[in-house]
Amino acid sequence: MHQRSAHRSLLVVGSVAYDDIDGPFGFHKDLLGGSASFIARAAAYFTKNVSVVGVVGDDFEQKYIDELSALGVDVSGIERTPGETFHWVGRYAPDLSTRETLDTRLGVFATFQPKIAEHQRDAQLVLLGNIDPALQLDVLRQVRAPALVAMDTMNLWINIKRDDLLKTLAKVHTLMINDEEARLLAEEHNLRRAAAKILKLGPTSLIIKRGDAGALLFHGGGAFAAPAMPLADVKDPTGAGDSFAGGLMGYLAYAGDLSPKTIRTAMIMGSVMGSFAVEKFSVDGIRDLTPARIQQRFDELTELVQFERVRL
Amino acid sequence: MHQRSAHRSLLVVGSVAYDDIDGPFGFHKDLLGGSASFIARAAAYFTKNVSVVGVVGDDFEQKYIDELSALGVDVSGIERTPGETFHWVGRYAPDLSTRETLDTRLGVFATFQPKIAEHQRDAQLVLLGNIDPALQLDVLRQVRAPALVAMDTMNLWINIKRDDLLKTLAKVHTLMINDEEARLLAEEHNLRRAAAKILKLGPTSLIIKRGDAGALLFHGGGAFAAPAMPLADVKDPTGAGDSFAGGLMGYLAYAGDLSPKTIRTAMIMGSVMGSFAVEKFSVDGIRDLTPARIQQRFDELTELVQFERVRL
Repeated sequence: MHQRSAHRSLLVVGSVAYDDIDGPFGFHKDLLGGSASFIARAAAYFTKNVSVVGVVGDDFEQKYIDELSALGVDVSGIERTPGETFHWVGRYAPDLSTRETLDTRLGVFATFQPKIAEHQRDAQLVLLGNIDPALQLDVLRQVRAPALVAMDTMNLWINIKRDDLLKTLAKVHTLMINDEEARLLAEEHNLRRAAAKILKLGPTSLIIKRGDAGALLFHGGGAFAAPAMPLADVKDPTGAGDSFAGGLMGYLAYAGDLSPKTIRTAMIMGSVMGSFAVEKFSVDGIRDLTPARIQQRFDELTELVQFERVRL
Repeated sequence: MHQRSAHRSLLVVGSVAYDDIDGPFGFHKDLLGGSASFIARAAAYFTKNVSVVGVVGDDFEQKYIDELSALGVDVSGIERTPGETFHWVGRYAPDLSTRETLDTRLGVFATFQPKIAEHQRDAQLVLLGNIDPALQLDVLRQVRAPALVAMDTMNLWINIKRDDLLKTLAKVHTLMINDEEARLLAEEHNLRRAAAKILKLGPTSLIIKRGDAGALLFHGGGAFAAPAMPLADVKDPTGAGDSFAGGLMGYLAYAGDLSPKTIRTAMIMGSVMGSFAVEKFSVDGIRDLTPARIQQRFDELTELVQFERVRL
């Protein structure tokens, strides 16, 4: 599926990190993590026209960058600077339904200033991973005329950088957040009402990620519900949302258009990649996929929600 | 949609009750409630071949029984005995996401012994609402050869009457419970694994109701996900699961077959009726519907999950 010539270019800005994760399957240290690591890998299954901007410290293993490069991802925007790589330490509840952050060591991420190279400034699709909204806005000042800008954010920025976040939101097309973040941002529990409030802040579409309840797209008065695959083996939810975003944006780059129909299909591709991501730790769930396996899970999701349209 | 002649007969056994409900929209006293009240009303939109077995006290307003009768429901099995009608008092959290039981006064329900009349014993579809599993089993001893027996249950019975529940489960085709009940019954958080365990207890299919995350059907290794309508106005979740069950079973009675395809459509009809139920208090949300409004929401749910099947 890489051979199509009309692929749009996708620029991904996000974190590249190490994660230490405790949970029902034990303690795992120094796992590859970070939003850009999941997004770029998931997107690379759909298009070779992906470039990443991020930062790592001098402790970061070069092999992870080389792996992305081998997938066709332009890694020239991943800068290496002296210091420690961003490090997240978290613990999941025994049932994996909740998690808490035990430690966050920003390291080189503390002074990260995304620099978009000349050849990346004409990117047609831009995905702003979950970083400081002021940095997200700075990226948008550097790109020229992207057809679609999507962004993620998190509770931290909603709480402590709301003004910066609102400025950035006013400049993006699509916001992708989880249900708790949507409620927090809108100060409204009901998701449909929360969506209506958020769509007044700038974005023309909102994607609410709901874990094993799937994802909802709201735009222009309409809605789309992408199912989640009911999985028997869930090991690590870390990166599921980023894998979803990577699959979605990668498919949009591959499909070459942004019609509502294509966006719905892209949501399903997002759900496919998210479902693979949670089955293993780190990026392992999306490491060695094939087009056939991706197609198989897409078909399974199709079958999962298939029903006959009847008239009473 | 009542005119089809091949309608199967549906027997509903459950509670008829008064509810006092506190929550974000104030305190509402003496609302019509009970599983059978929601189930029969929802089912009656699809078929006139519904009969109800239940019990009320001498405080119960006759008008509610007359209303069901006017919908074509056979209410001859609703017995009236001296004493207080079953009364549930509950309080919802401000965001409606959780509820607690403040008081349960069983009243005449404490000595309820379902008596299935001769003309009801050949019912082709049987829906056992959430009552003591020993009583559910007693109903199954009285009916002859139903093509489909579905049942609901709740945390209380799973906790204090597990042995009786397991005996009843071994005799039914379909169990319909919510996600928390499925986890409790299977002693397993993961819903796919919980489903696999529950399907070893007797039922050939399991329907897990997940509120605004929709409903999942598991049977014979396969799965179906029915979406929930994202609603802006949710007033009272009471009876949503029973309305879902009534819509589902009513549609099955109407359709006249139990093929996997028909069951999927029936799940969507269940979701339709559940979505109407939560928009108003008591049975008001499913009180004055028309075939056109039901069809409209069915079509909206269809559109909600519609996407193009692509090949990569």
